[in-house]
Amino acid sequence: MNAINNAEWRIRMADGSSENLAPESSLVTRMYLSFERFLKNLILIVMRFLEKSWNIGKNEPRKVIHCLKVGIALCVVSLFYYMRPLYNGVGGTAMWAVMTVVVVFEYTVGATLYKCLNRATGTFCAGFLAIGIHWIANQSGKRFEPIIMGVSIFILASAATFTRFIPAVKARYDYGTMIFILTFTLVSISGYRVANLLNMAHERVSTIIIGASLCVITSILIFPIWAGEELHKLVISNLEKLAESLDCCVAEFFSDSEDTTTNTKKMLAFKCVLNSKASEETMANFARWEPAHGLFNFQHPWGKYLKISASMRSCACCIEALTSCINQKDQASELLKNELTNTCQQVSSSTSEILKELALNMKTMRKSSRMDILLQEKSNAIQELETLMEQLSGLLFIQPKNDQEKPVIRTSSTNVIPLVEIIPTATFASLVIEIATRIEGVVDGVEELSKLAKFKLEDADMIIKQNKPVIKNIIN
Amino acid sequence: MNAINNAEWRIRMADGSSENLAPESSLVTRMYLSFERFLKNLILIVMRFLEKSWNIGKNEPRKVIHCLKVGIALCVVSLFYYMRPLYNGVGGTAMWAVMTVVVVFEYTVGATLYKCLNRATGTFCAGFLAIGIHWIANQSGKRFEPIIMGVSIFILASAATFTRFIPAVKARYDYGTMIFILTFTLVSISGYRVANLLNMAHERVSTIIIGASLCVITSILIFPIWAGEELHKLVISNLEKLAESLDCCVAEFFSDSEDTTTNTKKMLAFKCVLNSKASEETMANFARWEPAHGLFNFQHPWGKYLKISASMRSCACCIEALTSCINQKDQASELLKNELTNTCQQVSSSTSEILKELALNMKTMRKSSRMDILLQEKSNAIQELETLMEQLSGLLFIQPKNDQEKPVIRTSSTNVIPLVEIIPTATFASLVIEIATRIEGVVDGVEELSKLAKFKLEDADMIIKQNKPVIKNIIN
Repeated sequence: MNAINNAEWRIRMADGSSENLAPESSLVTRMYLSFERFLKNLILIVMRFLEKSWNIGKNEPRKVIHCLKVGIALCVVSLFYYMRPLYNGVGGTAMWAVMTVVVVFEYTVGATLYKCLNRATGTFCAGFLAIGIHWIANQSGKRFEPIIMGVSIFILASAATFTRFIPAVKARYDYGTMIFILTFTLVSISGYRVANLLNMAHERVSTIIIGASLCVITSILIFPIWAGEELHKLVISNLEKLAESLDCCVAEFFSDSEDTTTNTKKMLAFKCVLNSKASEETMANFARWEPAHGLFNFQHPWGKYLKISASMRSCACCIEALTSCINQKDQASELLKNELTNTCQQVSSSTSEILKELALNMKTMRKSSRMDILLQEKSNAIQELETLMEQLSGLLFIQPKNDQEKPVIRTSSTNVIPLVEIIPTATFASLVIEIATRIEGVVDGVEELSKLAKFKLEDADMIIKQNKPVIKNIIN
Repeated sequence: MNAINNAEWRIRMADGSSENLAPESSLVTRMYLSFERFLKNLILIVMRFLEKSWNIGKNEPRKVIHCLKVGIALCVVSLFYYMRPLYNGVGGTAMWAVMTVVVVFEYTVGATLYKCLNRATGTFCAGFLAIGIHWIANQSGKRFEPIIMGVSIFILASAATFTRFIPAVKARYDYGTMIFILTFTLVSISGYRVANLLNMAHERVSTIIIGASLCVITSILIFPIWAGEELHKLVISNLEKLAESLDCCVAEFFSDSEDTTTNTKKMLAFKCVLNSKASEETMANFARWEPAHGLFNFQHPWGKYLKISASMRSCACCIEALTSCINQKDQASELLKNELTNTCQQVSSSTSEILKELALNMKTMRKSSRMDILLQEKSNAIQELETLMEQLSGLLFIQPKNDQEKPVIRTSSTNVIPLVEIIPTATFASLVIEIATRIEGVVDGVEELSKLAKFKLEDADMIIKQNKPVIKNIIN
């Protein structure tokens, strides 16, 4: 087969070029070949898909656990009906339990609870309303019944759809509104046989409750994944990434080596902060539905996490601008850079220290008393950098007094720096100061969170242990 | 009632303060009062809700139209069953059509098509597979049947749930996977009575097709809202907002007035660009499912819009950093500012001109030949600014030759500017250059889009009309 495949027929054309002639092969051979190619491609695609899945499973085993949980819940709900054949025929009530499990079971406990509660409330309200309207329609005679029902379906479905556009409703009751429309229409249509209506409502509600409670139990009892905890972890890791990025950027700018590849990944960690808005909002929405778990109470102030993240994003934007300075670092004047290195690094390291401390505070849910000292250190460092920059005009452009009589151009030629060489460093320093200032939004956010969530104060001995060097400095 | 409400009993306490005594009222009065308060609060909440809804409806009438469309579709599907009572009893097949309409009808055509096609494909595949597995289970005897069915439900549900975590599947087939699990489980359970199975499959498929086609027809024929068009408009408006923000920021920085309130809204328009990532991705996903409409073909390169937006966001980040310079503009040295005003404004205006031209190109779906000239203008302006900054070192620190003999400190005192006063302007200029450079990512993105979407060239007379001043300049 390979021999045929590799054989090439070549003829020389009149204009000197050569052309390949495909070997004449039978229809069967060609079909076999194209089928072989198709099969190879298919295997390749499947292999790649499996490899990707394997990587996801290896990196996040909790996703695999979630899948097994869904499988278990579905098996239980279906076995429940295998064992006790409660339903008669197709479309019996068994269906509602299965449907509830499939539709309602989500990755996090919060999302599952949100869907369960919305589904239950939506079904209940719509059923109640539909039976009421049906009763009214029934009283007004055979002729008006379909008209009343049709008009009520139109008005209620339109109104309910409209509420889904209102942000507050969308965030919390979107699914419930959809279920409301669904149940209302179904009950209205089924209302043709009112004798069955209450029976059906009872069956449907009970099967939905069976399905929903099965979901909630599975999702809470077997390796629960809490939306709140995920959000908490995400914000902490974003704080750490921001600190890491800042450190790397400053180190990179003031380092002499040309090799930027090693730190690029760490340097660009801030991109995660910029890109996590949507997932944070979703998680905060789901976290609201979760009961107390781990370190978090029911109604933990999840909204504050969004505020902290918004402040972090404004810092991340500055870091993004900072990275552009790094590309210009070759143009920067060495003199000015050397002058500013220490103070700039002090500002950035005190800022990243604050970020790390905030991350630690959130991780341990404790209020550290070090924060005030760190903030003081940071504003001292900023002050120092600003003073330095005020003084630097002297260093840069003004002659020492004993050189007064010499021609200015010659003597200053060693120290005068063109503006274009000042700019990278000046921009860098100013952005570092801006980041150090903006970090206060994050500090305020965490402060508000710690008040609302009642973070405990650190143990006294821990405080002394942590602050020993600082206290020593103060005493000396 | 009001008399009682307003009456106040006041006694003077021993310490000189006075205290209000509530009038002693009967239980009925108090209940009446608290009920009145409750009612007032309720009315207030409802009023506020209605006001908010009214504003949404007034600002975006298309949302109201969508709601009416949902109402119409539901009425049609329910009237269809009122007129021809096809179904017998509760839970007949009518349900599936209603359910399909409620669940599948989305705001944009793309989203509706995505759900319809996913629902149909998911149902078909799962039904086919379930019937096959059921046949196998049936062959292996009564005892093994439930075991085989249970195991197959567990494995397939877990595997299908897992694929929902794979980004590519999540973006395009998330809903289909859910429907696959749902249908597979339902058919497996119903499989107890295999005689009904094919009948049920046929009924379910036909009602789903009725519901889905009703949704698609309503959504395409009555005031269609295309996800692709929305995305297109969003990206164009973001381009314009970016240009506006840049113009306002630069004008604000170099203006002398202290009044920043008038332009703040325009200045912060770039925030929309930063915040629209999630909605753009959703729209691009839905737009892929849409047929040709308006100016767009089927399989218009929607992915490129995301690329353009990503480049825009990196520019918006720089503008965000730019706004922080505006807060420091009082510290900036007037001399340097005056020196740089013109060139800086030239860079920014040529940049925003490019952005506006890109927006226009996208709006008209035409390739403008002005772009090369604009890009050339922009790089000339950048070049000029950089040259100016290189020369400025002379202005700033070096004495004019005829002043050579005078003491440097005295003569230079008028021109020497401390670094701290240079920094705001230097940072500003450097960020403006950075933005002007980053804009090229956007230009490239639009260029790629225009190639893939086969933008037409502008009419020759339009080119001449537009470029008259430029051509004149070149000729002169």
